[in-house]
Amino acid sequence: MNATNDLTYYLAAFVDELVKSGMREAVISPGSRSTPIALLMAEHPELHVSILVDERSAAFYALGLAKTTNKPVAILCTSGTAATNYYPAIVEAYQSRIPLIVLTADRPHELRDVGAPQAIDQLKMYGDYVKWFVEMSLPEDTGSMIRYARTMSARALGTALSAPRGPVHMNFPIREPLIPNLEANDLWTKYKELVDNRLEVNSGEYTISEERADYFARLLNVRQRGIIVCGEVSSSQREAFITSITELSDVLGYPIFADPLSGLRTGRHSKTTIMDGYDAFLRPDLVKEKLMPEVIIRFGAMPVSKFLTQYISKSSSAIHIVVDGDGGWRDPTLQANYMIHADETYFCNKLLSKLQPRSTSTWLDGINKINERTKSILQEQEETLFEGKIIRELQELLPDSSALFVGNSMPIRDVDTFLFKNEKKVTVLANRGANGIDGVVSTALAASNTYEPLVLVIGDLSFYHDMNGLLAAKLLKLNATIVLVNNNGGGIFSFLPQSKVEQHFEQLFGTPTGLDFKHTAALYDADYCVVSNWSEFQKNTTKAIQQPGLNIIEVPTNRVENEEIHRRLWNKVSQEMILSLNGES
Amino acid sequence: MNATNDLTYYLAAFVDELVKSGMREAVISPGSRSTPIALLMAEHPELHVSILVDERSAAFYALGLAKTTNKPVAILCTSGTAATNYYPAIVEAYQSRIPLIVLTADRPHELRDVGAPQAIDQLKMYGDYVKWFVEMSLPEDTGSMIRYARTMSARALGTALSAPRGPVHMNFPIREPLIPNLEANDLWTKYKELVDNRLEVNSGEYTISEERADYFARLLNVRQRGIIVCGEVSSSQREAFITSITELSDVLGYPIFADPLSGLRTGRHSKTTIMDGYDAFLRPDLVKEKLMPEVIIRFGAMPVSKFLTQYISKSSSAIHIVVDGDGGWRDPTLQANYMIHADETYFCNKLLSKLQPRSTSTWLDGINKINERTKSILQEQEETLFEGKIIRELQELLPDSSALFVGNSMPIRDVDTFLFKNEKKVTVLANRGANGIDGVVSTALAASNTYEPLVLVIGDLSFYHDMNGLLAAKLLKLNATIVLVNNNGGGIFSFLPQSKVEQHFEQLFGTPTGLDFKHTAALYDADYCVVSNWSEFQKNTTKAIQQPGLNIIEVPTNRVENEEIHRRLWNKVSQEMILSLNGES
Repeated sequence: MNATNDLTYYLAAFVDELVKSGMREAVISPGSRSTPIALLMAEHPELHVSILVDERSAAFYALGLAKTTNKPVAILCTSGTAATNYYPAIVEAYQSRIPLIVLTADRPHELRDVGAPQAIDQLKMYGDYVKWFVEMSLPEDTGSMIRYARTMSARALGTALSAPRGPVHMNFPIREPLIPNLEANDLWTKYKELVDNRLEVNSGEYTISEERADYFARLLNVRQRGIIVCGEVSSSQREAFITSITELSDVLGYPIFADPLSGLRTGRHSKTTIMDGYDAFLRPDLVKEKLMPEVIIRFGAMPVSKFLTQYISKSSSAIHIVVDGDGGWRDPTLQANYMIHADETYFCNKLLSKLQPRSTSTWLDGINKINERTKSILQEQEETLFEGKIIRELQELLPDSSALFVGNSMPIRDVDTFLFKNEKKVTVLANRGANGIDGVVSTALAASNTYEPLVLVIGDLSFYHDMNGLLAAKLLKLNATIVLVNNNGGGIFSFLPQSKVEQHFEQLFGTPTGLDFKHTAALYDADYCVVSNWSEFQKNTTKAIQQPGLNIIEVPTNRVENEEIHRRLWNKVSQEMILSLNGES
Repeated sequence: MNATNDLTYYLAAFVDELVKSGMREAVISPGSRSTPIALLMAEHPELHVSILVDERSAAFYALGLAKTTNKPVAILCTSGTAATNYYPAIVEAYQSRIPLIVLTADRPHELRDVGAPQAIDQLKMYGDYVKWFVEMSLPEDTGSMIRYARTMSARALGTALSAPRGPVHMNFPIREPLIPNLEANDLWTKYKELVDNRLEVNSGEYTISEERADYFARLLNVRQRGIIVCGEVSSSQREAFITSITELSDVLGYPIFADPLSGLRTGRHSKTTIMDGYDAFLRPDLVKEKLMPEVIIRFGAMPVSKFLTQYISKSSSAIHIVVDGDGGWRDPTLQANYMIHADETYFCNKLLSKLQPRSTSTWLDGINKINERTKSILQEQEETLFEGKIIRELQELLPDSSALFVGNSMPIRDVDTFLFKNEKKVTVLANRGANGIDGVVSTALAASNTYEPLVLVIGDLSFYHDMNGLLAAKLLKLNATIVLVNNNGGGIFSFLPQSKVEQHFEQLFGTPTGLDFKHTAALYDADYCVVSNWSEFQKNTTKAIQQPGLNIIEVPTNRVENEEIHRRLWNKVSQEMILSLNGES
């Protein structure tokens, strides 16, 4: 009974403290060595557990829960290659600053590196991609080791939640027998003094001094031609930040080049300074030169738009200010002059308290005019099933309080180009830490627990990559609509130089799979249709976002035609921009 | 043109040298940063490339090619989370000693750790799971750097092939432009002196001295009660080893407890000393005690059988000799007295030259009798679709020169119990490095390039885990038969103590998916059937192994019933053993 007590009380204390520190969700993949932790998690009255067999999808599902609830989520698996399947989601969590608690069960020390079955070296197995790794002690039912288990538990959550948020990894060596005593009356309360006398972790936020704030206010007060670039900000107080940044932009008369993931394009806040057509209008070098700013203030992740990045890169005479409340280093253009580690909302408010509002700004008005003209061209109607228009249609069809989850590769770029600012509260989400096409289905399905309705727009290769993720929809009875943009292969490569290498292009880059996804839909009990025109798309999408369960709307598109239409629209914008700018000069 | 020359000749030299050093197969997943290496691989006249979108499956497919061809195979992917998806197969390759050349394209130094898109830290990203990591230089078209590229290429293959074989990882920072000049006449031959004046790596093998061989011969000559345990041996000269080990066992009068992956149960070699029923007859402690040996000689990986491991563990008074030609350390029981790092075939032959043959051995005869009686019980007919009987049926149905690929968890244990020695040349394969249920479909499909016909026996969870792997069968037009043992969940857990924790068992461990795999078959153009009795199984299996393409034969089984029948058979064996051994004493 002693071994069972060691196992039971030590691991129960660990699990209980996760919950006491704020965890509400755990995603478990079945396995043998992880049995005691899995059983205790399932037994805990305040922890909700989801079971998903494929650890890769399970981890991305947990990532989606953590991303949308702003709470740490645990993933648990058994020893061996099971744990290696977590790696893609851990890297994405690290890069996109999402708190994940990665729990791996392990063989005890005497069974390591001696050829024992299903034993691999799990120590630091995720390298530098976790903020903290801890090899836990063997379970022990003593006051001091129960205190240790509870402290490690609270510390893990504290570490995952401190800036920048991210994953932590805890490895648990466990000996047989693996069955805890769930009948114990004092399962969660033994050593009551430790339950009452808890540890709470408080991580502060970065601020800057009055003196430095004065300095930056003076710097901005004398410069009219400035822009603000805003990507995804990992702040948990998004609404406060949106209020502050839009006010800052108003006061300065600086337009905000608002990435689709910034949260600035949609919602009820003021949008007079929000620019959303820049990916198209910044293409010609002449535009980049004519719009050369004196100041660039950047918040959040680098924007999706390659042309915005080029514009930043070419504005080498400007003063570049990069603000990161998490203390990170996001400057791939290497143009930063001021790297400011301060909470983004705090920084905006600090400046607002010191700045002189500008009454008018011809600079802002000029860019606004360009932006509006660009969008009127991009909105020109297309009868064919053009991928860009899917985003225009969804903008109309999505109701208030919905979420649009966007796949990587082409869909996120189309959202960047074609999602225009509007008053609907539509949350735009994507996995942009490492921009992978993997795990997108799972992350989006997890987000459907928070947002209803949720629509995922995804290409066929990314959809294929995480088809296993669809099992979550079936088993956990989720409601979601997937708009599957099927160009039968890697559509983005048609836009890249390798499209000219004819002898190898289709084999290496086009990579058509020829899969008929109606069978995938049938496998996972999804409502499925293929649309052949926009009125069918509208009708089926409207129906899908109202009905429960998993809905898949497939939009067959053509890679070559898709590239042509994109180029035609972009060229038209470019030509107008060049004409009008040349006319001015 | 200089940047293009740097890219072209440096990477062409690298790829060409892979081929010159013996590589014939590369598995590529599409991506942008990896474009130049992918194009050069596709262009090389002597390298065969396969394109698979899901990197996880792609890596397991490459593992299967390397495993069955005994040649190193390259995998290539782009930067970002793509590379993390290789991790499960890399760990399996490391644990099962299979040569993989892992090539990851990366952003150049100036785009690292600065928030650039799709840039993650790829340096040493697989930790200690690769034998060698090298961060390559940026491409440069100079004689010295071309020599460097060719040397690194040859060295990577040499390292992957030296004992113990395993994966190596090479990371390639590459700047844009990414398109090499495939039209160059001297693509493979520029710097001809370097092509002619090559580097060849020769790794020797471990041997032992005459004196030590004499010592071991004397030690064995005076001990009658010995056993040989043989697991999977990673030797590339399997036939020579089989001849030597069976001769050694004959001369010593020691039975060989032959793991199903040892290659000893099937084929034309002598089998009078081969034991194949031990997993059943070693269950009672009384048997382990009565059969306590004086010597145990072990070759290869630890056997599948838990009861054989317990028997080894309990034989603490025996002299334990562990032979590993790769210089590894495979002794989870911690019983080894002599760890011998010497080529297995060499070691057997060395002893054979020094040993006195035993004319008779009552010890061997006694164990042989037990083994035969055990098998006659295990062969008792079952009318129900019992999982163990699938193996008995396949043993009859598989033709000469075929391969049986076995999934982990239950199938490999059933093969251990129910695959009896026979004269057919059937190669039994499995991923037993880390025993994962992941990647099995992909590895098996790759093996079908070497073995025809190939039958994979796999449980439904493992099949689900790597369904994406089925795309290889469709796109690469492979011929394989999958016997899908569908007990709708994790069958092995019914055998474990958690099956008694009723309130959580089905949710955490039973994990039924309820998937109807006929849709999976339709998605991948497989011929599919569900059988409901043994005559249907026989008819459909016979048809499947004769027809081209992918065939899926689903056998619906019942987890509870399956456990009951297993237990009934094992109990019957145990009772007879105990009765007969008590009768003797």
